[in-house]
Amino acid sequence: MASQLNTPKGTRDFAPAAMAARHYVIATLRTQFERFGFAPIETPAMETLDVLTGKYGDEGEQLIFKILNSGDYLSKIPEGEIEKGSTSLVPHISEKALRYDLTVPFARFVVQHQNELPFPFKRYQIQPVWRADRPQKGRFREFTQCDVDVVGTDSLVVEAELCQLVHAALTDLGLTEYTLRINHRQVLAGYAEALGIEQSGPLFVAIDKMDKVGWNGVRDELEGKGYRADQLDKLMELLHLRGTPEHVLGGLETIIGSTEAGKKGIAELREVLSLVASFGPTPNLAIDPTLARGLTYYTGCIFELVANNVSIGSIGGGGRYADLTGIFGKPDLPGVGFSFGLDRLMEALDQEGLLKGIHPTPTRILIVHFGGETLSYALKVVTELRVQGIQAEVYPDEAKLGKQLTYASKRAIPLAGIVGEEEAKAGTVMLKNLENGAQTPVPLAELAELLN
Amino acid sequence: MASQLNTPKGTRDFAPAAMAARHYVIATLRTQFERFGFAPIETPAMETLDVLTGKYGDEGEQLIFKILNSGDYLSKIPEGEIEKGSTSLVPHISEKALRYDLTVPFARFVVQHQNELPFPFKRYQIQPVWRADRPQKGRFREFTQCDVDVVGTDSLVVEAELCQLVHAALTDLGLTEYTLRINHRQVLAGYAEALGIEQSGPLFVAIDKMDKVGWNGVRDELEGKGYRADQLDKLMELLHLRGTPEHVLGGLETIIGSTEAGKKGIAELREVLSLVASFGPTPNLAIDPTLARGLTYYTGCIFELVANNVSIGSIGGGGRYADLTGIFGKPDLPGVGFSFGLDRLMEALDQEGLLKGIHPTPTRILIVHFGGETLSYALKVVTELRVQGIQAEVYPDEAKLGKQLTYASKRAIPLAGIVGEEEAKAGTVMLKNLENGAQTPVPLAELAELLN
Repeated sequence: MASQLNTPKGTRDFAPAAMAARHYVIATLRTQFERFGFAPIETPAMETLDVLTGKYGDEGEQLIFKILNSGDYLSKIPEGEIEKGSTSLVPHISEKALRYDLTVPFARFVVQHQNELPFPFKRYQIQPVWRADRPQKGRFREFTQCDVDVVGTDSLVVEAELCQLVHAALTDLGLTEYTLRINHRQVLAGYAEALGIEQSGPLFVAIDKMDKVGWNGVRDELEGKGYRADQLDKLMELLHLRGTPEHVLGGLETIIGSTEAGKKGIAELREVLSLVASFGPTPNLAIDPTLARGLTYYTGCIFELVANNVSIGSIGGGGRYADLTGIFGKPDLPGVGFSFGLDRLMEALDQEGLLKGIHPTPTRILIVHFGGETLSYALKVVTELRVQGIQAEVYPDEAKLGKQLTYASKRAIPLAGIVGEEEAKAGTVMLKNLENGAQTPVPLAELAELLN
Repeated sequence: MASQLNTPKGTRDFAPAAMAARHYVIATLRTQFERFGFAPIETPAMETLDVLTGKYGDEGEQLIFKILNSGDYLSKIPEGEIEKGSTSLVPHISEKALRYDLTVPFARFVVQHQNELPFPFKRYQIQPVWRADRPQKGRFREFTQCDVDVVGTDSLVVEAELCQLVHAALTDLGLTEYTLRINHRQVLAGYAEALGIEQSGPLFVAIDKMDKVGWNGVRDELEGKGYRADQLDKLMELLHLRGTPEHVLGGLETIIGSTEAGKKGIAELREVLSLVASFGPTPNLAIDPTLARGLTYYTGCIFELVANNVSIGSIGGGGRYADLTGIFGKPDLPGVGFSFGLDRLMEALDQEGLLKGIHPTPTRILIVHFGGETLSYALKVVTELRVQGIQAEVYPDEAKLGKQLTYASKRAIPLAGIVGEEEAKAGTVMLKNLENGAQTPVPLAELAELLN
């Protein structure tokens, strides 16, 4: 059996070195989330199937992990249901499922606890989600999302604040080579209005593929749908606007500034930029007219975060929604959210060499002893260090010096404190730097201070 | 729909105040785990069904949450299998399940990664587990375990170190009124030997109930199994040994000291006590001859942790095992583990009033403004504070002073920084203590320092 032992497809173990990096990134995000006034919540891994059903489209729905009912689950299937097939049988044998994202559980949370929550409600949530997706590079079936949302306000201060939060978090992590792409749902609606298109859905779907298929791909798709040459020309001009936010906004103004939706979208983008400037720091923002993400959901500004030098798609995204909780019976609660994909963010940091300095083990010193009296003394030494806040280990067995030092090296413990009979008598520790081999005797009473 | 919205039975949401307490307790445990040389790992929420099956007994097996296979799961059921019933159908429609504890996934982890791991391997793991148990007070279907294990050593230093770790963690949390009960598998085997009992299983099962049914219950059960009066008298004497560890060990010595197993168990308990003393601090240990937990699994010392003044059963437990990973094809890897039940530990801390001082929101100050120029200035102020590490929020909307202050109170934010036109001009902030109402103007340049 040993040879086949593995985690389920698309899931991973995290050994200590990987955990050290994860803890560092999560702690950095948490620190910034809290500095920006977000408070943590957590929701259960499972939600009732009702809560998740109908929220992610047909394709998403297929990717939700359902949990088989406990006990005699077959006994509750009505006559003839099994014959109707797998999909239609699900609700009869499964009442719960693993969360697919953090947004829908958050919407459920807000509605369920609405009477206890202060609005505007600012929360962050860092938890794994599960999707029965085909695993591939950078795509897992269990991965962690780090979401911030503010609900209960229309203020564009929130959009600007999220831009600043992204900037502060990435700056702390050392990732200065990032771009936070912004667009606006009303700008996109302005395209449709300017082009005289009634059915804007297929237009947005085509635009959304610009990243992957380029302008030629978008054009071909829309030509196939009967778009005229003058419409395609105008769209090409829109989608190729690049440059400073001011320049892009100027271009948009020229082409869609007279449409009602476009006017509103452009004005809001300008206001967000102005508020961003009022905060002080300068995030790397780019108005991106090709950005179209998640249109059924967002209604105002939309965001997508990429690492400039790393090709793994977006490492975060979000936007404004006019109505987060209408699906659960509480309409008209607007808000803005942003989600970092922890695993992709870490991949980007790793490729940029920004996770190198992290120590793979918490332990700073291994106390090496030779049994008997030296063991008793070693136990006293580790206690003394631990009480002073130093991560210290004692080798549990009697073993030769070489074996104990090899263990320390394998664990990447940087220091050894060797205690033989002499040290036990003198009340000292022979402090050995395991990187360069240097060693020096240190009185026990001074050891913790020296290490601190 | 809103009225029925809820988390699945036995699961909970954690709002910001609850999260603050959880973060505090988890951070305290992590700090101590790391001081004692444990390094973190994480494993996926789901394991393949193979890994979990056959590890928890028939009763446990029923409580494992199975995940329905994705796609057309019905198509893979062999002819005639549905008719055999729910239990036998499971492996045909489910390949994965949610973890039931952290021990079995850890054993799988150790075997899977054995070639990369340094032994002795010391790990901690803080993650939720899921059980389809009947929910009741203090028992949930999703709850968090905090496990430490050392594998790859027979040294009793580890047992002693875990006693010290429990003491250090609980001391940090303020829970001085605890008892760490200890017994030894060989001591229990000594009872059977001294009583001349061949089938020791039923004896241990009966002893394990002592807590719940008292001596009379244990006696009745064993009488029913044909135990003689002289056997029951001897057992009664054993199970009623109380007092200092030295006293209890003396009593055990008298009754089972001549048995082979008893002699070994008593000697090991003495050695553990001696090593605990060498470390220095004095944990609240009690040798408990009635402690018998998880006998199929443990082979040496066994531990159970209780809060003296809180009746919620054990808040942690563990013990030594001779063979953690034999079930996965790697025999003879001994170790010792201890697991804190986070939810019960928190319940005990709460009942002892030890979670009172925790601030329910991370935000320390709300910047209150009146739109226009005061908003721009407010944004500058929050940035200044955040850069200096202070959790600061700005009210996103234009609103009256009273409304903004009410919001701060609801959020339990302790301070407000009011910025009107005057403050914006002067470069100051009117700092208001929301607990006592006192307010004082502070130059912006001095505000962060004042708060730090």
